[in-house]
Amino acid sequence: MFLRDLIDKLGGEAVGEVDEPLRGVATIDSAGAGQITFLANPKYRSSLADTRASAVIVNSNDRDVTSRPRILTGNPYAYFARVAQLFSPPPAVQAGIHPSAVVHAGARIAASAGIAEFASIGAGAVIGEGALIGPGCVIGENVSIGAATRLIARVTIYAGCRIGERGIVHAGAVIGADGFGFAPDQGSWLKIPQTGRVLIGDDCEIGANTSIDRGALDDTVIGNDVKIDNQVQIGHNCTVGDHTVIAGCTGVAGSTRIGRNVMIGGAASIVGHIEIADKVIISGNTFVTKSITEPGVYTSGVPHLPHREWLRNTVQFRRLDAMAEAIKKLGDKK
Amino acid sequence: MFLRDLIDKLGGEAVGEVDEPLRGVATIDSAGAGQITFLANPKYRSSLADTRASAVIVNSNDRDVTSRPRILTGNPYAYFARVAQLFSPPPAVQAGIHPSAVVHAGARIAASAGIAEFASIGAGAVIGEGALIGPGCVIGENVSIGAATRLIARVTIYAGCRIGERGIVHAGAVIGADGFGFAPDQGSWLKIPQTGRVLIGDDCEIGANTSIDRGALDDTVIGNDVKIDNQVQIGHNCTVGDHTVIAGCTGVAGSTRIGRNVMIGGAASIVGHIEIADKVIISGNTFVTKSITEPGVYTSGVPHLPHREWLRNTVQFRRLDAMAEAIKKLGDKK
Amino acid sequence: MFLRDLIDKLGGEAVGEVDEPLRGVATIDSAGAGQITFLANPKYRSSLADTRASAVIVNSNDRDVTSRPRILTGNPYAYFARVAQLFSPPPAVQAGIHPSAVVHAGARIAASAGIAEFASIGAGAVIGEGALIGPGCVIGENVSIGAATRLIARVTIYAGCRIGERGIVHAGAVIGADGFGFAPDQGSWLKIPQTGRVLIGDDCEIGANTSIDRGALDDTVIGNDVKIDNQVQIGHNCTVGDHTVIAGCTGVAGSTRIGRNVMIGGAASIVGHIEIADKVIISGNTFVTKSITEPGVYTSGVPHLPHREWLRNTVQFRRLDAMAEAIKKLGDKK
Repeated sequence: MFLRDLIDKLGGEAVGEVDEPLRGVATIDSAGAGQITFLANPKYRSSLADTRASAVIVNSNDRDVTSRPRILTGNPYAYFARVAQLFSPPPAVQAGIHPSAVVHAGARIAASAGIAEFASIGAGAVIGEGALIGPGCVIGENVSIGAATRLIARVTIYAGCRIGERGIVHAGAVIGADGFGFAPDQGSWLKIPQTGRVLIGDDCEIGANTSIDRGALDDTVIGNDVKIDNQVQIGHNCTVGDHTVIAGCTGVAGSTRIGRNVMIGGAASIVGHIEIADKVIISGNTFVTKSITEPGVYTSGVPHLPHREWLRNTVQFRRLDAMAEAIKKLGDKK
Repeated sequence: MFLRDLIDKLGGEAVGEVDEPLRGVATIDSAGAGQITFLANPKYRSSLADTRASAVIVNSNDRDVTSRPRILTGNPYAYFARVAQLFSPPPAVQAGIHPSAVVHAGARIAASAGIAEFASIGAGAVIGEGALIGPGCVIGENVSIGAATRLIARVTIYAGCRIGERGIVHAGAVIGADGFGFAPDQGSWLKIPQTGRVLIGDDCEIGANTSIDRGALDDTVIGNDVKIDNQVQIGHNCTVGDHTVIAGCTGVAGSTRIGRNVMIGGAASIVGHIEIADKVIISGNTFVTKSITEPGVYTSGVPHLPHREWLRNTVQFRRLDAMAEAIKKLGDKK
Repeated sequence: MFLRDLIDKLGGEAVGEVDEPLRGVATIDSAGAGQITFLANPKYRSSLADTRASAVIVNSNDRDVTSRPRILTGNPYAYFARVAQLFSPPPAVQAGIHPSAVVHAGARIAASAGIAEFASIGAGAVIGEGALIGPGCVIGENVSIGAATRLIARVTIYAGCRIGERGIVHAGAVIGADGFGFAPDQGSWLKIPQTGRVLIGDDCEIGANTSIDRGALDDTVIGNDVKIDNQVQIGHNCTVGDHTVIAGCTGVAGSTRIGRNVMIGGAASIVGHIEIADKVIISGNTFVTKSITEPGVYTSGVPHLPHREWLRNTVQFRRLDAMAEAIKKLGDKK
């Protein structure tokens, strides 16, 4: 691949040697001959002088930021993503059903889909063209997996759930387990059957060991182009709007409605039965306790301190009300 | 099924047309013809006027809250749970051992148990009547699974652990992995063999991707009718009393003793080596740092704020002690 | 085994009957005849009078703390760990490849390695001498697993990742899933291919349902003798130094560099792109928001309170800045 090939495929303006041969992408610091890097964050501008990259993707405003062969574009990071995808396409799906796989009666597997060893496909399931059901995946009855969606390995999809096209589900993810619903009855718990489904749109990525519970009566619904990281928990009957991203270790309790283009940092906790408006940004480690109706950034974590300093201050937390009262009294006396 | 059939099976008092045919349950808002709904929370009382449900389960005190065919009962939510269970019983367990399953020498599988494809049953394991070992489950040596307990899929039970009757364990759960125990020795770590077991009582439900570690020397013990949600971590040598519920993403460090009828919200963190009394309620996202000896509700999360407001206030957290001191001095001067 | 056998194998000084027969280890409280216990924490000194243990491991300074047969050593807990390992060695690995396992072309399996049922070994993978690939594990292409490393069950290792020797990886762990990297592009997300690997050193233990993501371009690197508990998430391009321990439910965001001999408590949240110095101790439930350059203990959790007390105080959190201002004004007026 040459620099001019990238321009041909992805657009942008070339400056310098367009016959520069390229074999891959790298960071500014680690790039060597034959690799192309990018400058998106101005704070790395000074590192650019020392890069050994053969070419650089830069913003159109940064035409002269380097003398190396370069590509000018409006969004260098997105351009870089496309270049990286060209150099590292996902492994081709090997069509066909491994002889060890168990495909139950009535399942419909597209001819170009790949069903790997030890996969179990339930009765009535539908697997789309070019989809991959990786080793050890368990696909429940009447599940639908859209075209070109890849379940990497050891993914469980419970009965009746649906995933759209071009998705990726990482190992250990569990889609459609029972929501957490019990009715108290004379000191014991009665299970509420969880009969809703999980419906996931197109172009979603679900991280390793993440769980998304099925709805109790209605469905849990994840929109299109939603990206969910590892170790995330989505409770029953939640809805997540298109283009929303949720970073690792976040938990969302049941029946919460998250809007479109929301960004949720890692290890956030979101209570149930609330609504989060479109375009809200929730910082990592934030405890969201009520609905958020306006776009903006919301935060609650308390940053770390040296332990003794923390100890001295945190004991006052339970005196905050008394402190406020004391301040008020002192003011009144004046 | 007719309304009178529910009365016959589950008790309660019918008001209105007992020959109303019913095909399922639904929420007040989404119910249609042939569906029965319920009113447990007074705040949905006003929605009842618009429901299209064919029948409603209401509190005995609410006899006239609707003119629709209705069932009067002391606990509408529990009654609803029972009705939902009638309409959606768990799928029948298909008795027998799938030809692909590997059953090691000396394992005893009850005749009515179902062992699904790619299940591995260790030597000396005992699987009770009507139990289900779903696809891809790994059952260690000498494990005991009680009658009618269902391991849905891809569950791992380490050697020697026991689960009682009528339980449900969801996909990805890991019961009996080694507790986290290491002795420091000249800058390196020596593993403490974890030779205790996990003992789980009857009627428990364990969520997807949850982990419960085996004890170091003694056992980790989970009582009866304990409900544990997804992504929960229970450390070695913990005990959890009967009827306790633990919501998703909660972590409990080792050797902590949790009482009976305790309710723990999502994403709580509970330190090790403490005791939590019966009937304690711990709010979501709470950090429990010492034993709780009295029933009641306990909380610690700091709610979210708009980021700038958070920033302005949180910087004062490390000045709390100084503030308290300043207030004291101001008071003294008076 | 007799007490003198322990002295022969592990050193230390025997006091009392060296022909005491021993069959196992136990805690001070639960030990019975034939069991050896230990005293490491002075707070259990008083319990020692009542122990029924046949022998005790004590500190050399505690020669007369008990009249029972005893072993004197500089580090009783480490000595106890070694004794426990003698009594409970890990189960021997059964060499050979189970007939149900799928070994892809070009994988190299050492003769003494054990490949269990339903294991999948990718093309070009290398499995070392005495290694165990447990039931249902998925080993990607070109993965390397070092000698004597044991993957207990249902572990997934993505293509190209490496684990050193003598490691343990518990059920449900996922090593090498894609890091969470997307470039925004006109309201949608473009995936950044994650082409780095995960490299894990020797003598590491990785807990159940833990995830360690592969690097985006460079590798995620875990050193030697690193112990990671259950339900932990390590983001792409992190590095973790030798002898560091990370307790359960902790999340580390991408590109963070954690030093050697660091101890991280449970449920900590660590932001991305920071550095944590060697020998730092991070308390459980701490939110680490910026680099820590000095050894020491760092903390941030807010402890639980009775709910009403919490409510009264926490509402003041958003008034902290105003309180500080009020105090300042009151001081100025004096």
